[in-house]
Amino acid sequence: MSQWKQIQQLDIKFLEQVDYFYDDNFPMELRQVMATWIENQDWETASNHESLATVLFNNFLIQLERQCSQEQNFLQRHNLKRIFHQIQVKYKATPLHMAAVICTSLREERRILSTASMQEQGPLEKSMQS
Amino acid sequence: MSQWKQIQQLDIKFLEQVDYFYDDNFPMELRQVMATWIENQDWETASNHESLATVLFNNFLIQLERQCSQEQNFLQRHNLKRIFHQIQVKYKATPLHMAAVICTSLREERRILSTASMQEQGPLEKSMQS
Repeated sequence: MSQWKQIQQLDIKFLEQVDYFYDDNFPMELRQVMATWIENQDWETASNHESLATVLFNNFLIQLERQCSQEQNFLQRHNLKRIFHQIQVKYKATPLHMAAVICTSLREERRILSTASMQEQGPLEKSMQS
Repeated sequence: MSQWKQIQQLDIKFLEQVDYFYDDNFPMELRQVMATWIENQDWETASNHESLATVLFNNFLIQLERQCSQEQNFLQRHNLKRIFHQIQVKYKATPLHMAAVICTSLREERRILSTASMQEQGPLEKSMQS
């Protein structure tokens, strides 16, 4: 199961934490429509290597353009087009910044998933593990 | 059928015209989730009367908050919350401006629907009407 699918199954109190760090720097639509592709890229390395960051930025736009052209729903297509232009303008000169934003978001998601998983364990299980 | 439903049934060339004038001043999500309510308000009068514009602005936020709380989909709820804050900040001091933006959008939609309807009529029907 993708990390994003796991996130969506969390309780509302954890979802609110996810809600908090998704904004125009990394719109949640992108996270959702490109979930698997995003999770398969090495954003950590890219956030420190401009050449890889540039390749990922360009591939990101190609993937997003494909999603736009395949989208049948008028509102969804409108939103994806708007986000395409927004991302293009925002990160064209700073692909390292985009890589860092995505890397941080994915890391933050993993932290929330881990916290949620810990809290799901009952006190007895926790004491047996310690 | 609501005006917004009619819009969504237009050919792609007309949809692109609609696409063009929906932006952050009046996000298309709002147009969609509050279609009937929006179409039942007198935005034309409100765009010239600050007291009515203020009432509509406040009611708009109440309706939008209700939509947020009822929305089950995580991404949609996230988007509606983001838009709620965006609209609140943008038009709190200028409800007349919001009324004018909505009034213009609805008028523009009617113009596009009317053009599309004219173009659907065949040349023979048009010549018989003239």
